[in-house]
This record gives sequence, structure tokens and C-alpha cells, in this order.
Amino acid sequence: MAVKVIDVKVGVFDENNAIADEIRAYNKNKGTMMLNIMASPGAGKTTILLRTIDALREDYRIGVMEADIEASVDAEKMADAGVSSIQVHTGGECAMDASMVQQALREFDTDGIHLLFMENVGNLVCTAEQDTGANYNVEILSVPEGDDKPLKYPLMFSVCQCVLINKIDTRAWFPFDDDAVVERIHRLNPDAEVFFLSGKTGEGFDQWIDWIKDKMQMR
Amino acid sequence: MAVKVIDVKVGVFDENNAIADEIRAYNKNKGTMMLNIMASPGAGKTTILLRTIDALREDYRIGVMEADIEASVDAEKMADAGVSSIQVHTGGECAMDASMVQQALREFDTDGIHLLFMENVGNLVCTAEQDTGANYNVEILSVPEGDDKPLKYPLMFSVCQCVLINKIDTRAWFPFDDDAVVERIHRLNPDAEVFFLSGKTGEGFDQWIDWIKDKMQMR
Repeated sequence: MAVKVIDVKVGVFDENNAIADEIRAYNKNKGTMMLNIMASPGAGKTTILLRTIDALREDYRIGVMEADIEASVDAEKMADAGVSSIQVHTGGECAMDASMVQQALREFDTDGIHLLFMENVGNLVCTAEQDTGANYNVEILSVPEGDDKPLKYPLMFSVCQCVLINKIDTRAWFPFDDDAVVERIHRLNPDAEVFFLSGKTGEGFDQWIDWIKDKMQMR
Repeated sequence: MAVKVIDVKVGVFDENNAIADEIRAYNKNKGTMMLNIMASPGAGKTTILLRTIDALREDYRIGVMEADIEASVDAEKMADAGVSSIQVHTGGECAMDASMVQQALREFDTDGIHLLFMENVGNLVCTAEQDTGANYNVEILSVPEGDDKPLKYPLMFSVCQCVLINKIDTRAWFPFDDDAVVERIHRLNPDAEVFFLSGKTGEGFDQWIDWIKDKMQMR
């Protein structure tokens, strides 16, 4: 299915945080809550999003902003799933910033959209450095990546309100210490919610879905 | 085991490529070949390095430069394995550049080291944009990440002379099309060598080890 693709430019001035606040005001006015979904390449962002949308599509009107360096495969998957989506090409940039989100929101009609997911570029470094204007940041860490990632990418785990430990169906094949990863995340960020789930099997999704519904009530 | 840690600064001027050439001249003069190992977080860089070092340590004197945002766990693993290593902290930067490598080489005595591995920051975007002064670039893509990564991170697969497809022991649990990934890599980079292996079991290491030995003879 054909999807809309836009190329965005990096904001030239150091006004990112001001733009991020503008985005939150703009979204609040429209009744839209925006979640910034971050992860390494291949951690399962798109699979989790598709299942999450399926669980929530009867309750809310949902939109997806897909950010990639230059590909459009994820927005096509969303469009095939019947979800209103836009593909943003960052033109080589390793993360979305607020200016890019604002440009995308000008192109993407979010009237009537209650819940907007932004799937960021696959990256644990640059993405964590930018306030995108999202209401909440969500990091997906997959079991095959290892439980040491909070030690190596501390900023990412510090800026998230929610961490999803994905691919728990593969724990038999990869050494992964659940308690250690939670302890490492909470040492950086005591208030972070940590949920264990599998985008493939759907195990553990209830808590994550409830977390979103809870935040939606507070928007 | 305690390891040497240095904090490096990003080069201020657009002189990266000139410094990269200086590094290659410096290493050639010492008889050192440098490989830049890149991958997503959790793709298995450290595990592959440890097994590779084991396979080559009787033939060559080996050194490892570990680059991380701020952690030192990988250099400690190398030191525990008895390998001469240095930890570089990039101070939040998402990739090593030539200036950082040069600063590290001033601290790291590479006299008598034939083969120097540089384990870059876990990242498929920024790392591909910098000439680090390495003789060859190697990308590790792991099966759980998916076979679509060359579509989404084309620059990475364009700048590598060698791509290792890691964690092939998990192919039963993750959909991964070997032919498709090779075709996608070769469409971007017809000369890239692609080897399938497992850092965990050692399967498929012979071709990769032979590739390094071949390059060592040409240094």
C-alpha cells in the first residue's frame, strides 16, 4: 500500500525544547497523546506496535509516525494493517528531533487521533538525547541484546517512563537476568515502569496495554 | 581486572579523513592492521571478538580498543581474557571518529601489535558515517534483528568490506531469509564478503578467520 513520505530537515537553532513544548500544547489541544518508541535496530518495535494497535483500536483512533533514515517498509506495514500512518525520512540523521516531528505533524492530519505512536530510528544513543515533543518515552529492550544494556546506554534508560523487555519467548536461548535488568534500570530511573512481554506471542501485553490506557485517562 | 580508560573529545575541524589517513600510515609503519567492528547494541560484538581472538592469538599479537559511551565492561572482559586493551569513553558521542582513535592510539602502546580490533559504539547509523582510520570495516548483523536491516541502514552495509551474520544458532526461532539478506547487502555493496556464523557455538568461524588471515598477509 502506498504511504505518504516526507523528508525532514534538522532544526538549525537550539530551540528544540521550545518546539517540543509547542508540540505538546498542539497535541493536548487536539486531545492526542504521543508516545515516542525507541529501541535498537531489530528489537521488535514494529511487531510490538502492530500488536498494541490491535489491542487498542476499538478504544481509540490511532496514528503512527514512522521515522527511518530512508526506508518506508514500516509505514507500509502500518498502512497494510489499516492504520493511519506517515513515513518520515530523516535524511541520514540518527534520531527524530522536535523540529522534525513538527514538520511531520504539519503534513499528517491528526484531527480525531487520540493516540499517536512515533516509531523512532533504531538507535540507543541519539534518540535519547532529543525531546521530541512526546508525552512519554518508551524503550524496548529485547532479550537477545542482553541484560547489560542499561549499563552501556544509561541515558536511554534515564529518559524513559516505560521500558518493555521484549522477546521473552527466547529466554531459553539467551542468558538474561530479569532481576538484574530491573535493578540496573531502577538505579538510573527509579520511577520507570518495566514490563516483560513478547511481541511475537502476545505474552505479557496486558500490563503494557493497561499502562497506556491509564495514561490516556490522564491526558 | 582494572583497565585503562580515557575520555576523548570530538574533532572540532572537518579534518576527519586526513586524520584517518594519518592513522593508516602510523599503523602501517608499525605493521598493525586495524579492523573497525560495528553493530547494533547486543548483536554480539564482544562475544565474536573473544572467540576470534582465541582463534588468532597464537598467530598474532592482538590488541583491542573498546569504545563505549561511558561503560567499561567490555574492556574488562578483554583484560580478563588476557588481551591488551584500552577503553575509550566517547562522552555521549554515538560513534568513534578518527580524532578519537588518534587520541586513543597516543595512550595505547601498539608497538608489536599486529592486529588491532576497534569495537565501536553499538549503533548502525553514526558509526557508518565516520572514517576511523581502520583498514577494514566489519558489520555484525544478528539473526534476531531481522533480514531487513540492509534496507533500513543502507550506509552501514555500503561502507563494510565484510558482514558477519551472527547468532545463526537461533535461526529456528527467528524468521530470517539468508538469500534475501545477501542479495540486499550485495545490491548496496557488490564486493562485500558475507559470512554466517555463531559467536556462541563457533559454527562458521573458519571462513571469517581465513578472511582476516588473508588480509593480514596483504598488510
